[in-house]
Amino acid sequence: MIIDIHGHYTTAPKALESWRNQQVAAVHQPRQRPKPSELTISDDEIRETIESNQLKLMRQRGADLTVFSPRASFMAHHIGDFEVSSTWSAICNELCHRVCQLYPDHFIQAAMLPQSPGVPPETCIPELVRCVEQYGAVALNLNPDPSGGHWTAPALTDPHWYPIYEKMVEYDIPAMVHVSTSCNACFHTTGAHYINADTTAFMQLLQGDLFKDFPTLRFVIPHGGGAVPYHWGRYRGLAQALDKPPLGEHLLHNVFFDTCVYHQPGIDLLTKVVPVRNILFASEMIGAVRGIDPETGHHFDDTRRYIEGAALTPADKQQIYAGNARRVYPRLARALERRGN
Amino acid sequence: MIIDIHGHYTTAPKALESWRNQQVAAVHQPRQRPKPSELTISDDEIRETIESNQLKLMRQRGADLTVFSPRASFMAHHIGDFEVSSTWSAICNELCHRVCQLYPDHFIQAAMLPQSPGVPPETCIPELVRCVEQYGAVALNLNPDPSGGHWTAPALTDPHWYPIYEKMVEYDIPAMVHVSTSCNACFHTTGAHYINADTTAFMQLLQGDLFKDFPTLRFVIPHGGGAVPYHWGRYRGLAQALDKPPLGEHLLHNVFFDTCVYHQPGIDLLTKVVPVRNILFASEMIGAVRGIDPETGHHFDDTRRYIEGAALTPADKQQIYAGNARRVYPRLARALERRGN
Repeated sequence: MIIDIHGHYTTAPKALESWRNQQVAAVHQPRQRPKPSELTISDDEIRETIESNQLKLMRQRGADLTVFSPRASFMAHHIGDFEVSSTWSAICNELCHRVCQLYPDHFIQAAMLPQSPGVPPETCIPELVRCVEQYGAVALNLNPDPSGGHWTAPALTDPHWYPIYEKMVEYDIPAMVHVSTSCNACFHTTGAHYINADTTAFMQLLQGDLFKDFPTLRFVIPHGGGAVPYHWGRYRGLAQALDKPPLGEHLLHNVFFDTCVYHQPGIDLLTKVVPVRNILFASEMIGAVRGIDPETGHHFDDTRRYIEGAALTPADKQQIYAGNARRVYPRLARALERRGN
Repeated sequence: MIIDIHGHYTTAPKALESWRNQQVAAVHQPRQRPKPSELTISDDEIRETIESNQLKLMRQRGADLTVFSPRASFMAHHIGDFEVSSTWSAICNELCHRVCQLYPDHFIQAAMLPQSPGVPPETCIPELVRCVEQYGAVALNLNPDPSGGHWTAPALTDPHWYPIYEKMVEYDIPAMVHVSTSCNACFHTTGAHYINADTTAFMQLLQGDLFKDFPTLRFVIPHGGGAVPYHWGRYRGLAQALDKPPLGEHLLHNVFFDTCVYHQPGIDLLTKVVPVRNILFASEMIGAVRGIDPETGHHFDDTRRYIEGAALTPADKQQIYAGNARRVYPRLARALERRGN
């Protein structure tokens, strides 16, 4: 079995974007904002966008199940206030839920939160509860920078975030640390902001002692952990310099990396320096890099080929493909068990 | 011959830091700021800090020559105004110049610029001229984020920076793109801000067409290029998606990476994915990571061991150790020729 723990609904019907554009245009005129009920998307439209995109590629590449969440770059938590974010995340989550209902064997939900800059994270809990209890979400995406590239929120180790962590522990669900679009012109969204955020989040966790307060809290750092595995020696050395325990003890019971690294040497490095039990298969397909690599003739984001090409035992590959996901996402494991998987 | 293109005077006598602390304390009281003449450091003090630190380790590790610049994290361009930055950079550059005069066979200068947030970069040119013409500087350090982690400056491809680039072309000197300390609590200076800046700078260059305007302009991205080599497939794919030429053609005539990556698998990846002609030996010794790696028994930043351990021909290693530095830093090559090297 192959579980892709990192997929977003990047191909949603255009009506979603149109609705959002109207909402954004009326950010300062609350009465002119569109109602959620004004967005109508049929099941057939959903089927078409999924079957001709994600599901087609999953079948071609042999992935069975995707942990599916709203499009990360469209979360845009920096736009408007909590009310704007709240309405938008409810719509996005509900749409993903419909995908998961239409294709229960292939998609299972991760929740988007209605974060908003300067607004306490506990305001996100009702939406998280709804996603877990009504939609069967098995994880959530947590944006460490709701400002969209200005980095005005406290570090992930700050008590600011604890209400979310308490709920994560209660539900036993992991968070993928995933920023949204950059509205800082210095940072290209998928080429700089995403990768920087991954690196930043890891270093925040390294500097702190969050997992003393929350021993069972779990984070997945996407995009192969940003720069972290490439600079694993630097991070081991910084942990030592900061009088922290070795990384294995300090962070690796709680921090995991996905495999969204789009070439063989990157995956080779990841699987060499990070313990296999901390690596979870993912492609972020269909996402930032949609083209075909002229050097291989295959899609850059067809990450299964790199796992297949890595110097790993079959048992290691199975851990990366599914075993680790079942352990890190217990609600996913239980959902699979209920289906007889 | 082994040239380390990335060293900072991180071990300067304490008097320098004390002077700076007085300057910083009087940022808003110009009349109370200390005069440059109030800083007195003897040649013997300089000798002691260099001989017991950088020079000792260079000898132990077999490095012959270091391109030497003021301590990057102390540049702190975000503090005070242009006048504060200008006085501080003049002091720091002069001190490095004294190191280079005392040890002309072992240190050659790279200039620190008196950047200041919101101040046009052309204000830095007099200090750059002084460093090149009076101190024999062969390169400069360019901070893409003088705000110190708030990223308020235009991207490196913006005409904002062109006055600096015109001078770089005139002098035929490269710039190392190097940020300073982070005053944004989200970003640990050496664990996040440095690495993020490297990644950000590369992506800015990828998005733009700067080298059409400046075909001979050259940048060195430190710390092994941040996250870039690890995500080389992502960047190749993003170049394709943005309708840019392949990276080799688009950037690699002008963009180079140093070897400040502190473990063997990282250097193995770097030397596998980036052409050898784009890799320049460096250690940033004595810098962010000063400890001994318990896995190897050697200093994390003893990067020569990783180059020796990489699957490279002797000719490739010689390119990385010195040949590329001579080509990318022509003023360094000429200085070596004058000395008969």
